[in-house]
Amino acid sequence: MAQAGKDKKPKDDKKPEAPAEEPRPVTVAFDVMGGDHGPEEVIRGAAQLTLETPHIHALLVGDRDVIDKALENIRHNAERVAVHHAKDWVSMTEKPAAALDEKQDASVLVAARLVAAGEAEALVSSGNTGAGVLSCARSFKLIPNVRRAALATVYPTQSTHGTREDPFSLILDVGATVDASADDLVAVAVMGTAYARIISKNPQPTVALLSNGTEAQKGPPRVVEANAKLSKMSSLKFIGNVEGVDIPKGTADVIVCDGFVGNVCLKMLEGVSETVVELAKYAYKEKLLWRAGLAMLSSGIERIKEVTDWEQYGGAPILGFDRVFIKAHGRSKAKAIFNAGKVAAKAANNNLAKAIQDALPQA
Amino acid sequence: MAQAGKDKKPKDDKKPEAPAEEPRPVTVAFDVMGGDHGPEEVIRGAAQLTLETPHIHALLVGDRDVIDKALENIRHNAERVAVHHAKDWVSMTEKPAAALDEKQDASVLVAARLVAAGEAEALVSSGNTGAGVLSCARSFKLIPNVRRAALATVYPTQSTHGTREDPFSLILDVGATVDASADDLVAVAVMGTAYARIISKNPQPTVALLSNGTEAQKGPPRVVEANAKLSKMSSLKFIGNVEGVDIPKGTADVIVCDGFVGNVCLKMLEGVSETVVELAKYAYKEKLLWRAGLAMLSSGIERIKEVTDWEQYGGAPILGFDRVFIKAHGRSKAKAIFNAGKVAAKAANNNLAKAIQDALPQA
Repeated sequence: MAQAGKDKKPKDDKKPEAPAEEPRPVTVAFDVMGGDHGPEEVIRGAAQLTLETPHIHALLVGDRDVIDKALENIRHNAERVAVHHAKDWVSMTEKPAAALDEKQDASVLVAARLVAAGEAEALVSSGNTGAGVLSCARSFKLIPNVRRAALATVYPTQSTHGTREDPFSLILDVGATVDASADDLVAVAVMGTAYARIISKNPQPTVALLSNGTEAQKGPPRVVEANAKLSKMSSLKFIGNVEGVDIPKGTADVIVCDGFVGNVCLKMLEGVSETVVELAKYAYKEKLLWRAGLAMLSSGIERIKEVTDWEQYGGAPILGFDRVFIKAHGRSKAKAIFNAGKVAAKAANNNLAKAIQDALPQA
Repeated sequence: MAQAGKDKKPKDDKKPEAPAEEPRPVTVAFDVMGGDHGPEEVIRGAAQLTLETPHIHALLVGDRDVIDKALENIRHNAERVAVHHAKDWVSMTEKPAAALDEKQDASVLVAARLVAAGEAEALVSSGNTGAGVLSCARSFKLIPNVRRAALATVYPTQSTHGTREDPFSLILDVGATVDASADDLVAVAVMGTAYARIISKNPQPTVALLSNGTEAQKGPPRVVEANAKLSKMSSLKFIGNVEGVDIPKGTADVIVCDGFVGNVCLKMLEGVSETVVELAKYAYKEKLLWRAGLAMLSSGIERIKEVTDWEQYGGAPILGFDRVFIKAHGRSKAKAIFNAGKVAAKAANNNLAKAIQDALPQA
């Protein structure tokens, strides 16, 4: 092993690094209201971005008094933070359409309008998902040849521990469009591929159709037809149908389904993890020996949690509009908001909408 | 507290117990081939039934040589065991339709024909699910006013630890019919309720419709329409829409969906548990301390497993036919087959098909 040391080049001999590619400046609008942990966590995440990523400017949208007061105590780069006042906001429990009809100055809607007007290039919100989707629909334009938008989610997968660099799969649609035609499913596959390509730096992500069997003829007519169409598209790396078991396995980089199936799946996964937590609590209370065992395991559990931590994926996009919207989880704390802002800036900087438009089959 | 003792009646004073209700004799046909663990496990489970439940007769269908040889070494009540030879069988990996077309003497199809002919009153198989459904479709009749059959599954739920006596929910359809109309979904709700009523001894099981939101207007048109129809049916305890999160929670006794959504969900749950096992293995290898922790936890994990053990539910029915078919899991060992046989006998003895027919809305 001493030999290995000799092979090392002396420090002063190393080649000068190529100058880091300077991303162009991009402004991300943050809806600071409506998340589960209140405005401060969102402001904290956005503020951190202005310190760590020189090309990102944060436009904070929400109650100005709340934001100004919070900024007094949070380190940030004042040159890269702007505030836009919005007097209302939509809570998690409100019905999206009714709330937005009533509150024309709700923060998420105001933020979407600012993005539509070019004041910012991307939007991040950790608030009410329906209100976010609807704010986009009311403020942005659909990309030509996209009939309906799709909401994505990222799900950490088993393949984390394998060879894949990106420890998640993208699943979409998970609720924007409950009744999708074959052509809608094809558009969803194209949009998901374009997004994965940009965000994961994966030039050719694999894309699959969720069905009740891997054979091409499995599933309801819309799925069978979509399979036939996708099979003919050389621009995609379509690997055919996958089954529910393939979601956690991470068989494909992008899994495509209609918003009804996707929403049911997504919520079931949330339910399963809650159930596991419940069972663990039950075991915990039961017996001192188990408690000791759990304590001994805790650092291992922490490690597993780290790998499967959705916070590091920074939220998931709504695809199909001419502007970028990254929906962060309602439970997002500063770290998740920070990552969502980074993802939003990356999508905007790589012109996601144009990438989708170019990849879509022409009508 | 001494006072309480005085209230106890002396032992000899107790009322003679009512004679246990004697269930009428019932013959269950077992497809002994095609399960993951081979014929012996199926034979062992069926044999145990003939020892423990005097009213159940077992008709073993499969390769006679294999069965006879196995019976030599397995305790059973010879008066209640019969054998019917079938020279072929369908493996797990075969395509059901093609396999049954080719193998007219496949054990599952022969067994279904025997049930149709009245040689037995119920069928249990742990083999290829598609071949089981298709054997029923080719041998049994659909109940009047049922347009399509539904395959159910039982899923252990969180509510195990609560007040409910039955620690599972019934979910159907999970794959028999991928494209269901509103009327099909209503029929599925009626069939699931009738089954839960008989098997769980729950006079009024709650039934819910799986959707992407709890509001009645959520979901694709077929689901919205089914919600409206079910809401008007006083014979059911319809609690409205539930979401994916409610499946593991066990919010409803019977959860209704089309076979496409149900199949995706079911297979995803299988994938999730495999992933958890993988993660645990990964942790296990990683560190000695964790290994010690897991060892200390093992009796707790065993207890949790016991509660959530699908083997005790003995398989799930295919509903809609005039005869009873219980599909046991492919991984069933003797215990699961034993329980599946008990469930099959109970369904037959309580005239499941008639109960469904009576409960269906008249066309």
